[in-house]
Amino acid sequence: MREIIQLTATDKIFRNITDEVGKMADKWGKSGLVNVFSKHTTCCIFLLEDELLHKADIRFFLDKMVPKWKEPEGDQKNIKYLHDLISLRNDVCVEEPINGHSHIRSLFFNSSEMVPVSEGTLLLGEWKDIFVVELDPGRPREIICTFIES
Amino acid sequence: MREIIQLTATDKIFRNITDEVGKMADKWGKSGLVNVFSKHTTCCIFLLEDELLHKADIRFFLDKMVPKWKEPEGDQKNIKYLHDLISLRNDVCVEEPINGHSHIRSLFFNSSEMVPVSEGTLLLGEWKDIFVVELDPGRPREIICTFIES
Amino acid sequence: MREIIQLTATDKIFRNITDEVGKMADKWGKSGLVNVFSKHTTCCIFLLEDELLHKADIRFFLDKMVPKWKEPEGDQKNIKYLHDLISLRNDVCVEEPINGHSHIRSLFFNSSEMVPVSEGTLLLGEWKDIFVVELDPGRPREIICTFIES
Repeated sequence: MREIIQLTATDKIFRNITDEVGKMADKWGKSGLVNVFSKHTTCCIFLLEDELLHKADIRFFLDKMVPKWKEPEGDQKNIKYLHDLISLRNDVCVEEPINGHSHIRSLFFNSSEMVPVSEGTLLLGEWKDIFVVELDPGRPREIICTFIES
Repeated sequence: MREIIQLTATDKIFRNITDEVGKMADKWGKSGLVNVFSKHTTCCIFLLEDELLHKADIRFFLDKMVPKWKEPEGDQKNIKYLHDLISLRNDVCVEEPINGHSHIRSLFFNSSEMVPVSEGTLLLGEWKDIFVVELDPGRPREIICTFIES
Repeated sequence: MREIIQLTATDKIFRNITDEVGKMADKWGKSGLVNVFSKHTTCCIFLLEDELLHKADIRFFLDKMVPKWKEPEGDQKNIKYLHDLISLRNDVCVEEPINGHSHIRSLFFNSSEMVPVSEGTLLLGEWKDIFVVELDPGRPREIICTFIES
């Protein structure tokens, strides 16, 4: 079984989609695995505890590890990521938004996560929830959920 | 086929469970994939070479990237992760252990790994082993192994 | 269905194998998921946008986060990763190449990725491609693709 979750554009970094995936699993009713997949390069899937201060810690961690503007270093006085040197690229128009940092931040998350399912129930453990991690806010997103029987 | 690996609480960061998963695959005897999944937010799964000095390198890397106590920075003289400001949280009791860093360290590992299986044999390659990475020592853990036929 | 992609040794960090996997999916013709798995500890799989400047950003990010030679720190004047202290290890010969940093860099990528497939077509989204990320150049590699019906 395959189902799509359509998400409207948002400024929220973290969207908890556990309930939506859980309802699909319930409808499916079988045992196996579900793969929750983001079609987008700057929007990831990750299993996290839904605790506000922890989510703030992640935000600060990303800001420190992969700041939006890089610090000047050596010969490179330009503090943009190279991906954001739009004037060099032929594949995008000049209005292309700055999102080089969003792409690098995706290295800390995943394109998809697998979750075990038992007779229509997600086996997530007590603290784990399924999150869409939005690294480049303001775009509609599509998440593909694929159920596989074991 | 689904099987659970019950792990007793430990202080070891890395537990090699390749043999346990390999025995399950042998019992299963079919071809496809196995998903090895941790139900816990501060206990991950990762495929690594089982080499002691490499595991020490990972430990030092984590200590550097995500130290247990953060360095004071700007207005924030409190060196705890926000998740560890227990007095602000209603969802846990005051004895809640300090593990904000464990949560952030989980960004470097995975909730689960997939491993190909051929007629009951794990196709791991010469140097890859399946590890449980314990980021918050001293807790019993449950690992769910789900086998899917190809 | 299982298929192997044989890769010759290369100095390229990023190899786009989307076309090869796409042809396999087309031959398979069914719907479900494909798991693209690297058997190697210093060669990963990751879904990325195939944009040259972004790939350069990743290279600079890795060089900064996990440099080939560590900076001296505290008592440790030796700037090798511990994994590269070959004279201490009994499991390798003296000619073992320096690749401690390659192992640590693998924490930013994955051993395998799952991609949804619909009637033989990869559902990757507009910007996502399947890459082999070579962290220790100059070695032949094997990538295992396993197709699972949903």
